[in-house]
Amino acid sequence: MSTADPRTLSIDQIPDAAREMLAAYFTSRQPEIDRIGSPVASAVTHLQDFVLGGGKRVRPLYAWAGFVGAGGLENGTEDPSVVLRAVSSLELIQACALIHDDIIDSSDTRRGNPTVHRAVEKRHSDRAWTGSAAHFGESVAILAGDLALIWAEDMLQDAGLSAAALGRAREPWRAMRTEVIGGQLLDISLEAAADEQVQLAEAVNRFKTAAYTIERPLHLGAAIAGADPELIEAFRGYGRDIGVAFQLRDDLLGVFGDPSVTGKPAGDDLREGKRTVMLARALTRADATDPTAAAKLRSGVGRVASPAEIAELADVVRSTGVVDEIEEQITALTESGLSHLAAADVPAEVAATLRTLAIRSTERRS
Amino acid sequence: MSTADPRTLSIDQIPDAAREMLAAYFTSRQPEIDRIGSPVASAVTHLQDFVLGGGKRVRPLYAWAGFVGAGGLENGTEDPSVVLRAVSSLELIQACALIHDDIIDSSDTRRGNPTVHRAVEKRHSDRAWTGSAAHFGESVAILAGDLALIWAEDMLQDAGLSAAALGRAREPWRAMRTEVIGGQLLDISLEAAADEQVQLAEAVNRFKTAAYTIERPLHLGAAIAGADPELIEAFRGYGRDIGVAFQLRDDLLGVFGDPSVTGKPAGDDLREGKRTVMLARALTRADATDPTAAAKLRSGVGRVASPAEIAELADVVRSTGVVDEIEEQITALTESGLSHLAAADVPAEVAATLRTLAIRSTERRS
Repeated sequence: MSTADPRTLSIDQIPDAAREMLAAYFTSRQPEIDRIGSPVASAVTHLQDFVLGGGKRVRPLYAWAGFVGAGGLENGTEDPSVVLRAVSSLELIQACALIHDDIIDSSDTRRGNPTVHRAVEKRHSDRAWTGSAAHFGESVAILAGDLALIWAEDMLQDAGLSAAALGRAREPWRAMRTEVIGGQLLDISLEAAADEQVQLAEAVNRFKTAAYTIERPLHLGAAIAGADPELIEAFRGYGRDIGVAFQLRDDLLGVFGDPSVTGKPAGDDLREGKRTVMLARALTRADATDPTAAAKLRSGVGRVASPAEIAELADVVRSTGVVDEIEEQITALTESGLSHLAAADVPAEVAATLRTLAIRSTERRS
Repeated sequence: MSTADPRTLSIDQIPDAAREMLAAYFTSRQPEIDRIGSPVASAVTHLQDFVLGGGKRVRPLYAWAGFVGAGGLENGTEDPSVVLRAVSSLELIQACALIHDDIIDSSDTRRGNPTVHRAVEKRHSDRAWTGSAAHFGESVAILAGDLALIWAEDMLQDAGLSAAALGRAREPWRAMRTEVIGGQLLDISLEAAADEQVQLAEAVNRFKTAAYTIERPLHLGAAIAGADPELIEAFRGYGRDIGVAFQLRDDLLGVFGDPSVTGKPAGDDLREGKRTVMLARALTRADATDPTAAAKLRSGVGRVASPAEIAELADVVRSTGVVDEIEEQITALTESGLSHLAAADVPAEVAATLRTLAIRSTERRS
């Protein structure tokens, strides 16, 4: 494998190194796919383009920080290249999550390109195949996501970790995958039921975003390095708080964000009817102080369509005073997240990295 | 765990014992699901009902036969209860495959019950939730299948096998999952492209049916027991031949089967446009001897709808003489599959079991 020794890499070089690991992994599976048949190779190419084509490699990055932060480079029980390969597998779980979410959300584009199901649909149309092109696109995308999910398992298991490290990886790995799928099930269920319970919306943030994106990747890397329970608890505390703060920032951007910054239409969450924590809190506040605003919110969410309607509904959200409340919560969570690092014995360099990542994830961007 | 010592069980008792293992596994994951939220528990109940409600446990059965056949009960390196738990995980892969296939095939019923996506759709309608009930049903079913897939991995990894046995399990486990998803991708691609290549249709049978249902489960069980390469090769040879013969029998039943035996409408494969090996061979024969029949076949497959049209097209298939050809092939494959067992050192009792299973899978049923 041509990847440089990860010991010599700065944290900013980890995303590209993770991408190289993934590219090599796809190459290693190619003969199996070719043996099955060329139509399968074409579906795998869609998956490969998706995985290698973009993404910030946030999860491998946090897992690597967890490994380094727990002294994994010094204690020398696991080969750093092997560890980087093992944690790069998180990108394949993410590929499944996004490809399947794009079907669920009926999304046409992702990272500026057609989503996988739309790209396959177009191939079907271009070739004038039989049956519904849209249904074929979704069918191939379901299976491509499944393949990504099992290859994530294989990439971790076959990375070359010791049996002991694989055993230590079990807890975060097992928890994380159930948490992200459970969080996504909860998310779509709340949206369908137009549920207004703040604590259920908070559970979505906790499991779908915080645990999956930050808490468990840090936990995974630290566990592979053989971290003691106190350090793992500190990383997990950081991950929970920063992860939830990140999602609250995303809630704000989903209603008030500048489309040129977010890459999504203004107020898209209101049009979709997303049951965010911010929305649940806005409804609670409006019920207490402004029943007219509460009624407008309930009748508008998930039903507004035109930019004017969306902007008007965003103004109703703002009128409840919820924005300041959420901003204060983001600030408090960011402070409390960072305080976990200060309390534990995290090496200065890794603490600085995690501080930078925390600020990048939670700061105002509109 | 209340399961009886598997040493005392006959092969016919293995399916129920596998079901008990699965029931216990669902119970063990319940606290994690409850922690995420009750709407998730409801989705998991659909999955659990599906897994525990039916199925012949064919894959755990073959894996158990592979383990016993390789002397796993005598050599004593792995606890038989642990092995049974490990191979019961194959039913969770099968649950994902069927739940996702039912979306892909737009199937309303499975094993006499509504498919998962239809059952969830009905729950959405009954509660008058917002958005499309059909889309919600498919979305939950996609995620329920994903959950089954990762729980299969967890159930295997956490069953309690030794690190050495888990290592030996890697090859069949890794291959099998890519083969079944690849085979399914190939299947839907051939159907969409109306592909007529016999060797691609044969690859679907090889990977989607034979490898996944028989060859790899036997391989997995034998590998866990520490079988030598010759015995594994014999099991795999049996699995490939009997698996393909089983699929060819299914091809015949899909066109000529009695609905009261198959549980599907007569000639359903012709209506669906399935690109079976039998169809590809019928087209080859018709091209050589009866161009009118070939033209009727090409224009009818995937387009016939009424029982009369379907019956007429089935007669065209029969007129090509392909039925006798397929019957001969099934006979030859069954003989060659059983000859692999005779050539290797398979214990008499296991050989008898595999002979019974082979005959059950491939004999005439219409």
